[in-house]
Amino acid sequence: DTIKTDTLVDASNMSVRYGSKGIELQTKDNKFLFQLQSRFQFRFATPGDADPVTYDDYLQGGHTGFKINRARLKVGGHAFEPWLKYYWEYELSQSNLLDFRIMIERYKWLNFKAGQWKAEFTRERFISSGEQQMMDRSLINRSFTLDRQQGVELYGELGKGIADFSYWAAAMTGTGRGNTKNDDNHLMYFGRLQWNFMGEPLEFEGGDLEHHEKPVAIVAASAVTNQSPYTRFSQAGGGSLEGFNADTAGRYRVNQWNLESALMYKGFSGQSEWHHKYIFDTLHGNALTEMEGYYAQAGYFFHGLIESFPRQLEIAARETVYRPNVDLRNNLQRETSLACNWFFKGHKNKLTAEVNYLSLQDPTVPMVGGYRFRIQWDISL
Amino acid sequence: DTIKTDTLVDASNMSVRYGSKGIELQTKDNKFLFQLQSRFQFRFATPGDADPVTYDDYLQGGHTGFKINRARLKVGGHAFEPWLKYYWEYELSQSNLLDFRIMIERYKWLNFKAGQWKAEFTRERFISSGEQQMMDRSLINRSFTLDRQQGVELYGELGKGIADFSYWAAAMTGTGRGNTKNDDNHLMYFGRLQWNFMGEPLEFEGGDLEHHEKPVAIVAASAVTNQSPYTRFSQAGGGSLEGFNADTAGRYRVNQWNLESALMYKGFSGQSEWHHKYIFDTLHGNALTEMEGYYAQAGYFFHGLIESFPRQLEIAARETVYRPNVDLRNNLQRETSLACNWFFKGHKNKLTAEVNYLSLQDPTVPMVGGYRFRIQWDISL
Amino acid sequence: DTIKTDTLVDASNMSVRYGSKGIELQTKDNKFLFQLQSRFQFRFATPGDADPVTYDDYLQGGHTGFKINRARLKVGGHAFEPWLKYYWEYELSQSNLLDFRIMIERYKWLNFKAGQWKAEFTRERFISSGEQQMMDRSLINRSFTLDRQQGVELYGELGKGIADFSYWAAAMTGTGRGNTKNDDNHLMYFGRLQWNFMGEPLEFEGGDLEHHEKPVAIVAASAVTNQSPYTRFSQAGGGSLEGFNADTAGRYRVNQWNLESALMYKGFSGQSEWHHKYIFDTLHGNALTEMEGYYAQAGYFFHGLIESFPRQLEIAARETVYRPNVDLRNNLQRETSLACNWFFKGHKNKLTAEVNYLSLQDPTVPMVGGYRFRIQWDISL
Repeated sequence: DTIKTDTLVDASNMSVRYGSKGIELQTKDNKFLFQLQSRFQFRFATPGDADPVTYDDYLQGGHTGFKINRARLKVGGHAFEPWLKYYWEYELSQSNLLDFRIMIERYKWLNFKAGQWKAEFTRERFISSGEQQMMDRSLINRSFTLDRQQGVELYGELGKGIADFSYWAAAMTGTGRGNTKNDDNHLMYFGRLQWNFMGEPLEFEGGDLEHHEKPVAIVAASAVTNQSPYTRFSQAGGGSLEGFNADTAGRYRVNQWNLESALMYKGFSGQSEWHHKYIFDTLHGNALTEMEGYYAQAGYFFHGLIESFPRQLEIAARETVYRPNVDLRNNLQRETSLACNWFFKGHKNKLTAEVNYLSLQDPTVPMVGGYRFRIQWDISL
Repeated sequence: DTIKTDTLVDASNMSVRYGSKGIELQTKDNKFLFQLQSRFQFRFATPGDADPVTYDDYLQGGHTGFKINRARLKVGGHAFEPWLKYYWEYELSQSNLLDFRIMIERYKWLNFKAGQWKAEFTRERFISSGEQQMMDRSLINRSFTLDRQQGVELYGELGKGIADFSYWAAAMTGTGRGNTKNDDNHLMYFGRLQWNFMGEPLEFEGGDLEHHEKPVAIVAASAVTNQSPYTRFSQAGGGSLEGFNADTAGRYRVNQWNLESALMYKGFSGQSEWHHKYIFDTLHGNALTEMEGYYAQAGYFFHGLIESFPRQLEIAARETVYRPNVDLRNNLQRETSLACNWFFKGHKNKLTAEVNYLSLQDPTVPMVGGYRFRIQWDISL
Repeated sequence: DTIKTDTLVDASNMSVRYGSKGIELQTKDNKFLFQLQSRFQFRFATPGDADPVTYDDYLQGGHTGFKINRARLKVGGHAFEPWLKYYWEYELSQSNLLDFRIMIERYKWLNFKAGQWKAEFTRERFISSGEQQMMDRSLINRSFTLDRQQGVELYGELGKGIADFSYWAAAMTGTGRGNTKNDDNHLMYFGRLQWNFMGEPLEFEGGDLEHHEKPVAIVAASAVTNQSPYTRFSQAGGGSLEGFNADTAGRYRVNQWNLESALMYKGFSGQSEWHHKYIFDTLHGNALTEMEGYYAQAGYFFHGLIESFPRQLEIAARETVYRPNVDLRNNLQRETSLACNWFFKGHKNKLTAEVNYLSLQDPTVPMVGGYRFRIQWDISL
């Protein structure tokens, strides 16, 4: 890999623009496109930032803090042909490679993806952290998301009009971000079927910034099965929910399903998810733990109703309920959130303020709850 | 975050240049500017590179070595408006995100900065490692620098003529580079007032490469207070000075002040700092350790005096004294340094050779000292 | 390192192209060239990917897996002058800085390199992982490669016609990738002499994709001596071969030599290496372990013989033998491999399928062996 000074033709064969994905270099024949963008997210939180998970987390409280919450370098585009696309994303503050994938998108109805990416299992997780409606994902994301996985996937859009469907079907290692091998010979299998009953799919993006003149809506069902030592996934890779232990390869068989809906219309946007998760402990006679959770979320640009209301201001709210063990009574966690977004320049430069009320109910301890306030600036450069 | 092949307008809207910050892409309306540069620093040192800190360090000596001392990727520019600036810097060889900040620089007298950056507490630390006059910072930097911190800052320049002042006032987490939360609810507060008594501020840069025809000089006073487990800061984040222990959140209250001066005129440059640091151990009845240190440094392009002296050669010297504990007698560390810089292309491509004499005096051990020789190539690409 | 909005001249001084090294930005006077490319390598392997090293590795088998095997960001070019070249390469999935070097290539017969790079000790290691003929390096690479080292090197090409020679002579720290200091005061010294007896050197690249009309061939001899705690090197830095222990600085004196040949002609390519390695344990009276290994490899584009054979398909094979200890009888590891490459776009976009038979013979255990199948997609973007 020596670098030689290749004889370069003097003339440029690329145009250079600032576009929606940042710096964009594109060959004149459109065989090559290169896009580069960095994104910063600053956050102030009091009394703490992370969602409390246990009774002790509530009692101890957090630490008022200001931090760089996300620092991303994003590179994407296509190479050799317009339909041979690629994308990688690196978290600079943690030195983690997040996304890393190649997509063959030649036909609308049949596409192929290989690499590492966020499984399309839930709308809220798949929406980029830079394009969320609330400040961050809901309380139930921690327990139900598949987060990023490595594998291969077929996906596409079929039919039209009221019979318009999108589908995703993937085989993945099921060991989470950054793992270079599978723990056993059991893969993760994931599928999602989405009914675009208004005749077109809805983008994975928070808030109706485009002000859809015609309603766009979807309902979707997803399911996944996996055997691994892990009972949850996050940016850090595979991990364990409370009471589980990632000590033995292939210990847990985890089955999950999710019913989802989303709608956008004239500045209004709503979405919901309803999750079930079944964890079988193969070391203890397939002992079952069943968990359940849902959220419903809606936002509106009130400028549509009241002209004097600022055009750039959206107000949104979310209600989330999570039952870590459906076999226990009084086993409930709840999040109620209200957010205001000020869009200086769409999702590329926005300020979000959010207040949450979080509470925890558990048979063995008194009920606890408390408020949290956070403010965040997200900017893409 | 799917990548779509957005319909790109064929025409470029950016110009592409090689400039002082490396590759520069700028939109024609100057709303967006993107700059990218990498920097390499190679160093040979004998008998070792790091400043010896203890008596044992002197006895054991070091290991003659050649190394990649710094490998930086620097990205900066502005987005949306010329006054909305950003900058991030990544240390490639350590995989550390160093700088990460956004600046609103709309008015000369009032600017705002958020993110992570080198606190402007001392001139020698704030000057980039690629623009130093000596090979590296002085012996006292290790004990007195605040290094990089996360937070928010107001800064600007007020007045004019003999009443020209620059100021900086920041609230920071006080836990050093890379920490994503505060250890307690005590923040670091930092302020600096700089009197630009010749009517204009002096840049943070080593050596009078611009050959100022009119003298430019400043005096400045800085102060900081912080409560944290840490008694020193470095690129690695928070750490401990000898005899201190970062074991308990909020253990040490640390107060510091610094008096500073700097001057440039016709190829001559001089600068000095005088530091005091007060560490109170809150676990032991606020027991106080007081430390003190100063350095004075000067350099000159002798071509200004002797025409046959090479135009690209600067000779510089520094004297540094550090007392780790002012209550002990014979408690002194000293560094005397002589450096030659050959500027192939300003600070962007330069060779530095330096010889140091370092010594340590401590009441419990015999006095020790020794020479060190280092040679360094620093290049920005 | 503040970012100032330098007054940029409106006109571009750089041309922007997509070329053989990816995005290429070049000033019109050719004083500056900047190249950026990312590379992805996806691999599926069954029953496992890594070469088995011990008897137990054979018994336990591996885990069928799909993974991102390599994710590279490559930046290179020249600065200030066309002959002042630079190159750095970062492994995104491991967050490792791999290459980092500056080259002064002003004269054909005398060049200088400083930094960190793959020592030119063996042809198979020096060829980029993206330009290999087989799926990966042979069984003996693990034991004999010097991998990446930090240091300085002189190299060039002398003579002409049948007396054409290339040479490399380096002094390096001998502690492997990522080490910032030497363990002792013993450096690694490395030399390679290559006889280009057909009048020109052969590039470090797998497969005769250029279809050389005239045969090009080389023979080379390399030797190295090093004292360090390490008995092998890899991307992870210094490590230990089985039965050795990296516990004491400067413990092992390691001497190695390699005889190498390579040839390309009309779509055929062949290469071979023959290695000897002598490890002296200075803690045990310089007790000697001697190891030996060789491989021979050849590939051909059969389109040259049979017109109906696809032009983009190459078939290649390799035989490798390794004796970890020449003083033991029945101490042998063997790899026999057959690979097919389909070059969509040369080495920039290719698919490789490979089958291996690996076996291990050791005096204390029964002989074991087994097949492995791997498929890989390598793409540069």
